[in-house]
Amino acid sequence: MPEQITLYTSETCPWAQKTRIALAEAKPFGAKWTEFEVDLKNKPDFYAKTVNPASKVPAITYGGPAVPPDQPSPESIKIAESAVLVEFIADLFPQSNLLPQDPVLRAKIRFFIDVATTKFVPGWFQFTFKGASPDALYAAAEQVQELLDPEGPWFAGEQFTIADVSIAPFIERLCVNLQNDVVANPGEGSKVFKELSEAPRFARFAKYARAILGRPSVSGTTPHVSPIVLINIGLTLY
Amino acid sequence: MPEQITLYTSETCPWAQKTRIALAEAKPFGAKWTEFEVDLKNKPDFYAKTVNPASKVPAITYGGPAVPPDQPSPESIKIAESAVLVEFIADLFPQSNLLPQDPVLRAKIRFFIDVATTKFVPGWFQFTFKGASPDALYAAAEQVQELLDPEGPWFAGEQFTIADVSIAPFIERLCVNLQNDVVANPGEGSKVFKELSEAPRFARFAKYARAILGRPSVSGTTPHVSPIVLINIGLTLY
Repeated sequence: MPEQITLYTSETCPWAQKTRIALAEAKPFGAKWTEFEVDLKNKPDFYAKTVNPASKVPAITYGGPAVPPDQPSPESIKIAESAVLVEFIADLFPQSNLLPQDPVLRAKIRFFIDVATTKFVPGWFQFTFKGASPDALYAAAEQVQELLDPEGPWFAGEQFTIADVSIAPFIERLCVNLQNDVVANPGEGSKVFKELSEAPRFARFAKYARAILGRPSVSGTTPHVSPIVLINIGLTLY
Repeated sequence: MPEQITLYTSETCPWAQKTRIALAEAKPFGAKWTEFEVDLKNKPDFYAKTVNPASKVPAITYGGPAVPPDQPSPESIKIAESAVLVEFIADLFPQSNLLPQDPVLRAKIRFFIDVATTKFVPGWFQFTFKGASPDALYAAAEQVQELLDPEGPWFAGEQFTIADVSIAPFIERLCVNLQNDVVANPGEGSKVFKELSEAPRFARFAKYARAILGRPSVSGTTPHVSPIVLINIGLTLY
């Protein structure tokens, strides 16, 4: 039986949201955890000292005695980095099938996560925050789309996995900012939204994005802030 | 029983060497594979078309019928990205214990790989190839060192894991180039070598580096080229 889990998170951080989605997916399989909201603009002193020296979210304390989250025990294990934490949650709750056992499928899932991290996230970031051309975002969406199971709804077919967990917060933020045209170059957001959601060449991506937005673990961890706040946080903190 | 494995590699590529080290470690546990040397300066036409669209090494074809490596079967699975492949090899050969089963240890191993990839590799690259100050390399070596099992010899103690696999080619290349003072700023290499191998503050790192260089899977996959060739390849291709 897994031990105590305390997640240090921030409502608006997409990397932290990955771990919240993974935990929500593992909940029917026994996951219990405490969440502590870290104010990214005014981080509490204890955080870098006793949880994550890099002072970033997400991080997890695992095991050790039951303590208040702002007084972490030296006896608990401290783990950081969202990709590491998502695999950790999948390993702790194997019955969730967030990372199925077949080695080939695991490799395909990890390759998809690599594409999401090294292509889709920079494509989203550069277009939304930096006013770059949407070409890199389009190329990334096409590469994502080609890797998806043709039937879906998820990357690996019927089974929701850490592949979906790892791209979900970025698809969600992209959609919110495009739909509201809150991007570095106003006017461009609506155009790109129309292209990604209606153009036949993005049909599989659009269907996938709609499925992701409707997944309860994703919608249930969506930040309750406006797209303007999201973009301002992104510009300040990423 | 795992199926056929064909590894597309290049003798001088440190990322490809990670997969060669992992396979060598898995050999006593049943790993069999064919290696195909890709000439990075003159890649064969079939490679991007039928194995890895990104045209990088390493890549693996897995399963399908027995075919010559330069005529890959459409029936085999194609997998790329060295980090994905190293986990794939560990998953295929669980008895190798390259990635032990304990979720906490797995998370620690993956965090170490993240530090190696995002701190140590850039520190090595910027100092060796770009003439940067050694400060980032020193900081990375210290961070690596702090994560190592105090007794060793390996990251996780007695067990050699994918943590060690993932940093080994970079430690090896760093040592070769420093020891021969073949770096962007001649004279600096020897100084940094002396500091990293003799200064008390790097004692644990130096002991770890010596262990890594002596591991048969590492020494057995070392490129048979001079440090000058290594640096020229690095400047051309990375």
